[in-house]
Amino acid sequence: MLKHQFIDQLKEGDRFDDLFLVKGVRHAETKAGKPYLVLTVMDRTGELSGPVWEEVDYYSDVCKTGNIVKLKGAIRSFQSNLQLKVDEAVVVNDQEIDLAFFLPSTMRDREEMALELQKIVHTVDDPFVRKLLLKFFKKGRLWDKFQDAPAAKGIHHAYVGGLLEHTLSVVQIADLLSTHYHGIDRSLLLAGAMLHDIGKLEELAVNKGVVDYTNSGRLKGHLVIGSEMVGEAAAEIENFPKERLEQIQHLILSHHGRQEFGSPTVPMTVEAFLLSFLDDLDAKMNVTEQLRHKIDNGDMEWTDYQRSLERYLFLKGLGEVTDGGSADASDGMGRQQSLF
Amino acid sequence: MLKHQFIDQLKEGDRFDDLFLVKGVRHAETKAGKPYLVLTVMDRTGELSGPVWEEVDYYSDVCKTGNIVKLKGAIRSFQSNLQLKVDEAVVVNDQEIDLAFFLPSTMRDREEMALELQKIVHTVDDPFVRKLLLKFFKKGRLWDKFQDAPAAKGIHHAYVGGLLEHTLSVVQIADLLSTHYHGIDRSLLLAGAMLHDIGKLEELAVNKGVVDYTNSGRLKGHLVIGSEMVGEAAAEIENFPKERLEQIQHLILSHHGRQEFGSPTVPMTVEAFLLSFLDDLDAKMNVTEQLRHKIDNGDMEWTDYQRSLERYLFLKGLGEVTDGGSADASDGMGRQQSLF
Amino acid sequence: MLKHQFIDQLKEGDRFDDLFLVKGVRHAETKAGKPYLVLTVMDRTGELSGPVWEEVDYYSDVCKTGNIVKLKGAIRSFQSNLQLKVDEAVVVNDQEIDLAFFLPSTMRDREEMALELQKIVHTVDDPFVRKLLLKFFKKGRLWDKFQDAPAAKGIHHAYVGGLLEHTLSVVQIADLLSTHYHGIDRSLLLAGAMLHDIGKLEELAVNKGVVDYTNSGRLKGHLVIGSEMVGEAAAEIENFPKERLEQIQHLILSHHGRQEFGSPTVPMTVEAFLLSFLDDLDAKMNVTEQLRHKIDNGDMEWTDYQRSLERYLFLKGLGEVTDGGSADASDGMGRQQSLF
Amino acid sequence: MLKHQFIDQLKEGDRFDDLFLVKGVRHAETKAGKPYLVLTVMDRTGELSGPVWEEVDYYSDVCKTGNIVKLKGAIRSFQSNLQLKVDEAVVVNDQEIDLAFFLPSTMRDREEMALELQKIVHTVDDPFVRKLLLKFFKKGRLWDKFQDAPAAKGIHHAYVGGLLEHTLSVVQIADLLSTHYHGIDRSLLLAGAMLHDIGKLEELAVNKGVVDYTNSGRLKGHLVIGSEMVGEAAAEIENFPKERLEQIQHLILSHHGRQEFGSPTVPMTVEAFLLSFLDDLDAKMNVTEQLRHKIDNGDMEWTDYQRSLERYLFLKGLGEVTDGGSADASDGMGRQQSLF
Amino acid sequence: MLKHQFIDQLKEGDRFDDLFLVKGVRHAETKAGKPYLVLTVMDRTGELSGPVWEEVDYYSDVCKTGNIVKLKGAIRSFQSNLQLKVDEAVVVNDQEIDLAFFLPSTMRDREEMALELQKIVHTVDDPFVRKLLLKFFKKGRLWDKFQDAPAAKGIHHAYVGGLLEHTLSVVQIADLLSTHYHGIDRSLLLAGAMLHDIGKLEELAVNKGVVDYTNSGRLKGHLVIGSEMVGEAAAEIENFPKERLEQIQHLILSHHGRQEFGSPTVPMTVEAFLLSFLDDLDAKMNVTEQLRHKIDNGDMEWTDYQRSLERYLFLKGLGEVTDGGSADASDGMGRQQSLF
Amino acid sequence: MLKHQFIDQLKEGDRFDDLFLVKGVRHAETKAGKPYLVLTVMDRTGELSGPVWEEVDYYSDVCKTGNIVKLKGAIRSFQSNLQLKVDEAVVVNDQEIDLAFFLPSTMRDREEMALELQKIVHTVDDPFVRKLLLKFFKKGRLWDKFQDAPAAKGIHHAYVGGLLEHTLSVVQIADLLSTHYHGIDRSLLLAGAMLHDIGKLEELAVNKGVVDYTNSGRLKGHLVIGSEMVGEAAAEIENFPKERLEQIQHLILSHHGRQEFGSPTVPMTVEAFLLSFLDDLDAKMNVTEQLRHKIDNGDMEWTDYQRSLERYLFLKGLGEVTDGGSADASDGMGRQQSLF
Repeated sequence: MLKHQFIDQLKEGDRFDDLFLVKGVRHAETKAGKPYLVLTVMDRTGELSGPVWEEVDYYSDVCKTGNIVKLKGAIRSFQSNLQLKVDEAVVVNDQEIDLAFFLPSTMRDREEMALELQKIVHTVDDPFVRKLLLKFFKKGRLWDKFQDAPAAKGIHHAYVGGLLEHTLSVVQIADLLSTHYHGIDRSLLLAGAMLHDIGKLEELAVNKGVVDYTNSGRLKGHLVIGSEMVGEAAAEIENFPKERLEQIQHLILSHHGRQEFGSPTVPMTVEAFLLSFLDDLDAKMNVTEQLRHKIDNGDMEWTDYQRSLERYLFLKGLGEVTDGGSADASDGMGRQQSLF
Repeated sequence: MLKHQFIDQLKEGDRFDDLFLVKGVRHAETKAGKPYLVLTVMDRTGELSGPVWEEVDYYSDVCKTGNIVKLKGAIRSFQSNLQLKVDEAVVVNDQEIDLAFFLPSTMRDREEMALELQKIVHTVDDPFVRKLLLKFFKKGRLWDKFQDAPAAKGIHHAYVGGLLEHTLSVVQIADLLSTHYHGIDRSLLLAGAMLHDIGKLEELAVNKGVVDYTNSGRLKGHLVIGSEMVGEAAAEIENFPKERLEQIQHLILSHHGRQEFGSPTVPMTVEAFLLSFLDDLDAKMNVTEQLRHKIDNGDMEWTDYQRSLERYLFLKGLGEVTDGGSADASDGMGRQQSLF
Repeated sequence: MLKHQFIDQLKEGDRFDDLFLVKGVRHAETKAGKPYLVLTVMDRTGELSGPVWEEVDYYSDVCKTGNIVKLKGAIRSFQSNLQLKVDEAVVVNDQEIDLAFFLPSTMRDREEMALELQKIVHTVDDPFVRKLLLKFFKKGRLWDKFQDAPAAKGIHHAYVGGLLEHTLSVVQIADLLSTHYHGIDRSLLLAGAMLHDIGKLEELAVNKGVVDYTNSGRLKGHLVIGSEMVGEAAAEIENFPKERLEQIQHLILSHHGRQEFGSPTVPMTVEAFLLSFLDDLDAKMNVTEQLRHKIDNGDMEWTDYQRSLERYLFLKGLGEVTDGGSADASDGMGRQQSLF
Repeated sequence: MLKHQFIDQLKEGDRFDDLFLVKGVRHAETKAGKPYLVLTVMDRTGELSGPVWEEVDYYSDVCKTGNIVKLKGAIRSFQSNLQLKVDEAVVVNDQEIDLAFFLPSTMRDREEMALELQKIVHTVDDPFVRKLLLKFFKKGRLWDKFQDAPAAKGIHHAYVGGLLEHTLSVVQIADLLSTHYHGIDRSLLLAGAMLHDIGKLEELAVNKGVVDYTNSGRLKGHLVIGSEMVGEAAAEIENFPKERLEQIQHLILSHHGRQEFGSPTVPMTVEAFLLSFLDDLDAKMNVTEQLRHKIDNGDMEWTDYQRSLERYLFLKGLGEVTDGGSADASDGMGRQQSLF
Repeated sequence: MLKHQFIDQLKEGDRFDDLFLVKGVRHAETKAGKPYLVLTVMDRTGELSGPVWEEVDYYSDVCKTGNIVKLKGAIRSFQSNLQLKVDEAVVVNDQEIDLAFFLPSTMRDREEMALELQKIVHTVDDPFVRKLLLKFFKKGRLWDKFQDAPAAKGIHHAYVGGLLEHTLSVVQIADLLSTHYHGIDRSLLLAGAMLHDIGKLEELAVNKGVVDYTNSGRLKGHLVIGSEMVGEAAAEIENFPKERLEQIQHLILSHHGRQEFGSPTVPMTVEAFLLSFLDDLDAKMNVTEQLRHKIDNGDMEWTDYQRSLERYLFLKGLGEVTDGGSADASDGMGRQQSLF
Repeated sequence: MLKHQFIDQLKEGDRFDDLFLVKGVRHAETKAGKPYLVLTVMDRTGELSGPVWEEVDYYSDVCKTGNIVKLKGAIRSFQSNLQLKVDEAVVVNDQEIDLAFFLPSTMRDREEMALELQKIVHTVDDPFVRKLLLKFFKKGRLWDKFQDAPAAKGIHHAYVGGLLEHTLSVVQIADLLSTHYHGIDRSLLLAGAMLHDIGKLEELAVNKGVVDYTNSGRLKGHLVIGSEMVGEAAAEIENFPKERLEQIQHLILSHHGRQEFGSPTVPMTVEAFLLSFLDDLDAKMNVTEQLRHKIDNGDMEWTDYQRSLERYLFLKGLGEVTDGGSADASDGMGRQQSLF
């Protein structure tokens, strides 16, 4: 199912008949004591709210947070703001709807990025490592999940395709640097770069548009989960060398760089050093990129105080962009405070 | 093979013919330029050194660090110290020799402790958890290894049976407290207490009397290894509930209490809180117990400055004891610096 | 004076005639410029608010924050909330009113706990230490105060009987562990456990239902005050051994475990180590217990983010409970941040 | 008893017959197996060592570390160093010997400093505070002890009169600043400045020339001890105002400025802020002064790396000085690491 | 241009015709959809707000934040608060208006302080250093700017004359202590005291009453800017000794005392130690002084919790004062968190 | 002057007649009391020692630490070690001797690296920035110094050409990443990469083979010195835009990434973020590279514990290499402790 009408294009007086994601519903009461609802819906371009005066029970049932609903109605203006006037609403249960219509998502083409990543997999020299990577990066349920995966909790900070974008970027720089420095084991480094956040597929779950941690995500964390996933995949490959597996698991387990940031073990190999730097660098660069999209023109400007970075930034705008996509943003932030 | 002559009982003039562990060999040269060896051997009661003047190549080959050797010779006195005079030496390859003859070991009876631990396993109510524990704590290779396992690297800080002693102590207190506080899931807590250091069986290896980290021990750490071991054992039990497994893995992964101390995730359940406290408490109490054994009489005395604890201690001696056994000592120390 | 009507049982239309604690009064003004009051009262089961339109000066005088007042009136409903309609109010000056009617208080029986504690005092072997403990834990003004003492500042975090509950719990575990480990001086350990927070009797003051720090509480802290109190009590016991006194004062002064947490000196004896662990453990276990009472059913549930613990908790509910009682909660929290 | 011959004036061939402090005795053995002693003695100008070949048992008994002995003998040269050749030794038990002969001591006149301090006591306006100060700073046992008191543990860092020198310096600056800033309570500030380290009189003990912590010094610390001493002194003054006492105790208890540095409570009054700054400043200035005395000429020079200050210093020499006197040096150093 | 009517003296019904600084303008809308403005103006004694119903575009243009406007109108009362009723407004472009009319400013006489500072400049012995100081502290653009300079960003924390007040206070104490301790180079110390915050003249800019960081202020910081300014001034003095310049630059660059507080290098000379202490002390004393002005009477009182100092303060009021002036307040606060 | 005989090629019995750098001289004395010297000399391949029995005064004068001397003599063997037997020694005062003969130096060709760097300078688009770079990176005294500059203090850690090697590496990666991420100002980033350590030319001085900090190096640090150098160079370029200069100075001043590491200001622009990451990464990669050269074969091996990195490393050897070259090693280390 497709979607054609986007919130940032709706004007006063427009009528709409399209899909929206329910962001929230608030129960209220008029002064006269009559109950009504305040409905907020979103798509990847913005949000709209409006009251629902009638059939409160019906709407209350249909418009649960996280539902994708087909709404009919019109746009009115109230106190200079646009407001939703809903005439009809039905839940849509179609699993095939692309979440990227409703949630902020990467600005890059997910298919192109996926192809690019797969192409690099085939350049990995070590046949065992290549086989291992193909367990994850070729057609199949995991691979589909990987392409859409958000990288952080909460509707507001979820970015469809963010995990793919971040992984590809780290892989590309790792590839460049694997020849700049002497004696890097390129197969290992690329495997680490590709798999370092693979545990996020189980750490986070998207449920009706809402991204949240799973129980095991909180109780074990994506580093340990990722290490386990790789251990299980390697167990299915005959004669996979134990030493290679330990090295790759070490790359995953140590990629946060310090124990304070949740790595049970610190980087002890050249490849692990490099990976932990690149992961951190890419997360920070994405954060600044998001901030730059908010600057209208191409001038240098001071941002608001960035609490997570403990500083103001002086950035030049990147021009207008409607949706963004930071892989690993929240994660990077957790480390940021200590790292800068 | 047994051993009857112990170093702390040998006097000047005694002849010996028994087993010793080679602690080190130093190559030296007389002023005249003639090469000779200085051999140091140990058993659980102490060390002895002495020069080897002849057949340097032969002895150099036989007396490698970590070898168990059968030595014949006599005790002489040199500058008021006892010295070894070796007449014969052969390597002994018998795998059956109990390391407890040569390395400091727990002062408690390992068999008794093992029985006590197994008895508690059978009191665990949850049948799945009990089955899981029996994978580890009943006759078998792992169980044998567990009873002898040292708890830290290096000849000097290895204590045969230390892992068992520490585990039992934590289990016993956990058992006491499981009824003192409301709403503790005793099965879970005991499982966590029993398995929290199980990864040390693969983190450390004893090779010819020398304890050291394995590669995977350093690259992954005993928390992650332990969690994997438990995951694999649970996979062999039909219908083992996923939630229980996650809880137990959480207990293992979080038992160092803080990310700075190598826990990839912090305690988030009541049982995990309790376990991380008890593990730390028991490690510290063992450290003070070791120090108290060094105080001759039963008086209060100030110890030397304890760098790891950043303080002097004021302790009352526990009387004379020849060998000690601190489970988890080095580990506890790592955390100590920050914790006290 | 007794109290029979409790807030959580009052329904719309009920009339009341009973005692309440004034939690606050806000001066407001109608659009027409007429002044009125918004009165909030509390008892141990909850709070109720309501406007007072007439005799504003009189009510303003009677209903001072912290006063216990006898209110007559009725319960009405306003915008689906229950509201207070007050017809009469008088201040009640009776010193004999049990604060436990009005403030959250321990869920355990204070008398039973007191007896339990006194019983343990009599098992203390060392006659000097026992005599010292009886200075505090037998009938008298201090003892009465001890049984009711809250453990933290502010109406919301005060729990009548909290100090007693916490002290007893620490004493009980200390008793259990005094035999688990070798060479513990049980008399000393129990004395430390019983007296460690005794300084809170002077650090905090309850004034008309409001708990706050005293000047000396802030300027000196309960560790130093407690050490002084014990010093003065010992001075009244003939020949009380100086060394024993120093040891007990050390237990009190070091029980926060680290200088960062306000201990002028760190634990240097076995007993001091143990006590500082148990105090911290018991504070944390109380915190989780409070959180578990808020979970309705017996399922596992994630709590909100606990800022003081820097984590989410995954807890199983303890069922419905109306009032709680955490000794040392705020105090524990201060240490928590660094400890976990 | 006086002393006339000082170590820095003795030359090869000189004979001596005077008092020295035994710094240490080492038992040794010739190659031939004959036992002998190596004796090291000191006075405030330096150290001398030498072998004792005969009557080893007698000398071993007389020349215990910390004894003051009357030695007869001569100065010889051995491998270009001066060496002691002892002919006779007797212990001297005279309590009246001024330790300043043997230990490094303040370069200022102790009597003059004492008078200066007493003069300032009489300028204190508040009659209660003045009375309190006179309990400490007028003729009597405490006052005598105060004038000689060293300020740190160990022979090498003990400076006779150091406590007096440091106290006077802090008092003088406090006096200057009490008028520079508005609203300082001069009586309180001066009382705090005079008494802040008074607990050191009981924290440290000089035993036969060796300065060390007392048991209560380690177990309670000089802040708490000082607060107790002041509390006891005030109890002997009729109607001493409780609020004044709390303020003075707060000044003492908070003068290390931060809990990490052992203050159970942080400065909360203007006077406490000022005092904690001045105490720290004066300690640091003394440290640099000591270092400057070691620079021969008046040029700027880089010192060795100062571990305690985590830096090199660039200092101009103060010219030649034989003995120094830093009050509070070690103490200041403990705080330094965090403070600079 | 002068100003005669101050906000704290205006009463209900008064008419005004005087200068005010626009603190902010908010665009609002009546329920009927009619736009209006809410204007807030300030002078050094307080703030006043009021609606502007007519000529919204005109007023919106005239009353830009930071403008100084001449307002005519009256004072009314609305819901017991005083409110502004504006009849006329014109922008005033006069550069000669003293900002001290509108912004909180030092309570001391700026001219007197300036003279005092200049007098001390002439007591500096070293002729090169004196010449250098005269580059800054004699008639000229820089000197004028120095006398008015605020010391921190934002309208609320700007204090006209604060930089002068702070500098003079540090200079005075430095002067006192330059003789208290041995071997202080008074010329250097005074130069450092006078110039330590000189970079703030370029770090901060006052633009229409709003104080903010300049680009170079954020990108380089006032320590580096100040060092550069001094370097450039010295370059204009023939034969200015390179060593003296380095010393003075070191005093400026290290005056925050620790790298964590933005000093690229830590104090390494006696003068630098002293200066960093005095700067910090004076900042803290000013903070407490500001707090004391808010206490009405002369009693001891607990302040609210001071987040920046992480404590409550117990202060005695200094009596009524209308405007304050803390030099270096925000700066001091930044360091406070770590320092206390 | 050239050098042909290198220490690692000298064998027992060889005669030598070539240049060496004096690493140290120790004054000793035979048992008979006769003074002699122990001379240690070095070149870039190793060290040799030997006694000098005659003409002690003459040799003592000639062989001062840091002198380059022409030695004649022979190689003997003593207790299985090679030893120097010196027959003649003269000081060589030739300024033209390439220090790379005597000190460890980069393994890469300095001329090639220099050309590569200059080539990149010409690709910088911004004409002002390019002009600025040419002030430093074209023929001239500074440029010569730059090519040889060591990057750290002390003979053992100085590497001729290290600054050039490090700078080029950072520049190359910066160039690669300037297109990987959006919106990077390549001119600025390259300028920052090229100039970030330029201050080291004045921070460090090589004096007779000994590298040490200059006074201004310690008192101001290479960040501030570098910023000044760039400021002065820009002042010589007409109309150099102030904003560009501030940006470049910000890149230099913030390149240590955090205030704790000596940056007076933290990175606030995208280019500054990138540069601080790359500088740190390159320093760490050099450290591991040095360690890998010490591993003989191509196997994975655990290094000794690396105190500065707080870990063991698991590295694969890079094969045999005689001299190394770590740019920025000590500097990187300083930051390492906190960063990993």
